[in-house]
Amino acid sequence: MPGLREKDARRSQPLRGMRIVEISSYVAAPLSGMTLAQLGADVIRVEPLDGAADRTRRPLADSGTSLYWSGLNKGKRAIEVDLSSERGRRLVGDLIVAGGRRGGIVISNSERYADLTFETLRARRPDLIHVLLTGRRDGGTAVDYTVQAATGFPLLTGPENSTQPVNHLMPAWDVAAGLYLSVGLLAAERHRLLTGEGQQVRVALEDVALATAGNLGYLAEAQLGSTPRQRGGNYVYGSFGRDVTTADGERMMIVALTAGHWRDLLGATGLTDVVSALASALGADFAEESQRYRHRKVLGELLAGWFETHTLAEAETVLRATRVLWSTYRSFTDLAADGARLLRENPLMAEVRQPGVGRYWAPGSPVVMDGEQSPPAASPLVGQHTDEVLGTELGLCATDLAMLGETGVIGSHDEERDAA
Amino acid sequence: MPGLREKDARRSQPLRGMRIVEISSYVAAPLSGMTLAQLGADVIRVEPLDGAADRTRRPLADSGTSLYWSGLNKGKRAIEVDLSSERGRRLVGDLIVAGGRRGGIVISNSERYADLTFETLRARRPDLIHVLLTGRRDGGTAVDYTVQAATGFPLLTGPENSTQPVNHLMPAWDVAAGLYLSVGLLAAERHRLLTGEGQQVRVALEDVALATAGNLGYLAEAQLGSTPRQRGGNYVYGSFGRDVTTADGERMMIVALTAGHWRDLLGATGLTDVVSALASALGADFAEESQRYRHRKVLGELLAGWFETHTLAEAETVLRATRVLWSTYRSFTDLAADGARLLRENPLMAEVRQPGVGRYWAPGSPVVMDGEQSPPAASPLVGQHTDEVLGTELGLCATDLAMLGETGVIGSHDEERDAA
Repeated sequence: MPGLREKDARRSQPLRGMRIVEISSYVAAPLSGMTLAQLGADVIRVEPLDGAADRTRRPLADSGTSLYWSGLNKGKRAIEVDLSSERGRRLVGDLIVAGGRRGGIVISNSERYADLTFETLRARRPDLIHVLLTGRRDGGTAVDYTVQAATGFPLLTGPENSTQPVNHLMPAWDVAAGLYLSVGLLAAERHRLLTGEGQQVRVALEDVALATAGNLGYLAEAQLGSTPRQRGGNYVYGSFGRDVTTADGERMMIVALTAGHWRDLLGATGLTDVVSALASALGADFAEESQRYRHRKVLGELLAGWFETHTLAEAETVLRATRVLWSTYRSFTDLAADGARLLRENPLMAEVRQPGVGRYWAPGSPVVMDGEQSPPAASPLVGQHTDEVLGTELGLCATDLAMLGETGVIGSHDEERDAA
Repeated sequence: MPGLREKDARRSQPLRGMRIVEISSYVAAPLSGMTLAQLGADVIRVEPLDGAADRTRRPLADSGTSLYWSGLNKGKRAIEVDLSSERGRRLVGDLIVAGGRRGGIVISNSERYADLTFETLRARRPDLIHVLLTGRRDGGTAVDYTVQAATGFPLLTGPENSTQPVNHLMPAWDVAAGLYLSVGLLAAERHRLLTGEGQQVRVALEDVALATAGNLGYLAEAQLGSTPRQRGGNYVYGSFGRDVTTADGERMMIVALTAGHWRDLLGATGLTDVVSALASALGADFAEESQRYRHRKVLGELLAGWFETHTLAEAETVLRATRVLWSTYRSFTDLAADGARLLRENPLMAEVRQPGVGRYWAPGSPVVMDGEQSPPAASPLVGQHTDEVLGTELGLCATDLAMLGETGVIGSHDEERDAA
């Protein structure tokens, strides 16, 4: 397969030679594109004139530049096209079907443009790979917040005594859906490499949540179990773990999954004899996970009592000598404190210079290939690569580009905005 | 590439012809293997004698069979080997490096066996693809609960007036890490198809959480922002959305991301004039997302007041005629109610017959390929495929298998257990 072999590919860039057009917004589809860009794919994000709806999404830098957008589009190229015009959509369609063996791959979260649907584009390029995120499987809309509500988790999340739904802040379904899109795309591209056939890949946000609820046993339990699962607060379900507060007011999460963890935890906190006496009195064997779970509250209170009389430093010292799973609770402010010391210590993070934002520590790819990972790159400006992409990929000359710019079909990088 | 072309592959099975050995437990690595199995890969889970630690993890069926394990290992084959014996580990190593172009791929969450590490196995097969999940990048241990604590989200999750950390119940980092493992594996296998070179793929659970916190802008905001982000309860950050309670006590999540959603929401609830008067009085323009976010509480209370005086049925009727994003809050019990009606209506779900559990509705793959998805399959029993796999893949004959069984190196499917 000439042109696809990349003998000189850096180890962290196994997807070099793959070109993806992304017409997207918000979290899932952009994360899918960025994940593949971080593994070496050339990902071209198509923006409508002046940028998509999520271009200004919070949180914002003082300049008004979106830190959210900047985070989800690192290392992509961006072109600015009037998607409300037929000529603009034609250009984007041309770009999707171009690129030979490298191209013919599109990621989108929208079916609003009839000339950019799977069916229309496949008629132009039979081996097209079209990756589409929808809210519901039938194409209906949904977002992480509504999918959360629909699929059970918020009614079991949060304090034990709560009667309110507690949404998870982390947009877990968006993130998982974005990664499922990437898995589907890579599976389809493998199939195309081996057979020459294209495919459509569809993932619905709601299906991702239902599949996860099923995969983890929640749906089976509700179908088969006689007693509905209750809220468990920060207790670990089915094993032993809970949060505790130290004498100096710090919060920690302590988890003992195995009999070894449990022995270590009792030894470290000097609770071995007390817990042994309790086990005898209760007729329980705390070497068994199910027994630790059943008696988690009394065991938890004994443990919490130890932490209440020891400082974080004392607790850390004794826990470091054990196999117990534990961590202090850190805020995002803690992670950024002291010149982002904690972030700088992790090789995942590197400093990027983002126009409109300045310098900050951002994550590269969490996927490490042969010990190498892609460092983070800045995200593009609106229209930063319009001329470059349309020139190189579609062979448009300077005259063509100027005319398209003058008639408002495309937008280009604004030098003044970059300088600002 | 003869042997790899699968002209007759069903559309939903693009990974047919890929064989993966999985030595794993808990969520992330098993989910990675299952995700690829659902796309057609032959995934062989290696169990120690009597099964891994997670074989009995809650929730459980009445028979004691783990619904959790059954959910995360659907459609795999399982072999039972004494991993504490050198002969057993040698067999597993043989299996990993066997399989020609199909094989040489392993997913694991453990480096405890020196003869099954990347370095040892690569010495036996240079084009090995070795996919490893760790807790921390340095190989240190961590689980979803401790990673949550370490990476900021629990201190912003939960009720606005809470001062406690609120862990998310959904093991979001496990799920995301499992999907990143699959993305890395597919990227590495593509590279091997094109160049013949193998690779090691490593993903740390903590890196996945930090990367996500960075990608979504939380880390940048904490580094650059002067005001730390506050808990927002179930209000949507940066836009307009919140939970409400209906006159009949049902809970709903209502989200208006765009100006169109917002107009529709006001129209549906008859609040257009009131909100217009409020906008004038406040000098605000609620067509702007940032203004809706700034005044979310007063707008939220007006909206909540409407829902408090209308039943769920009334609210659903008016919202169905709009573009507003909304959902009722459902419990897992709700999803399973009425013979799992809601699950049966979704083509994602199908009925499986799981030995030790019975029949229930389980999810297939949320990745739909050309309109096809893999239906869910039952998960294997401990040792169900030991003889089949070692016979076919390693060419062991009945005499070899009997001797290995008698000397306790391998275990095989127990007919009595199956019948029970």
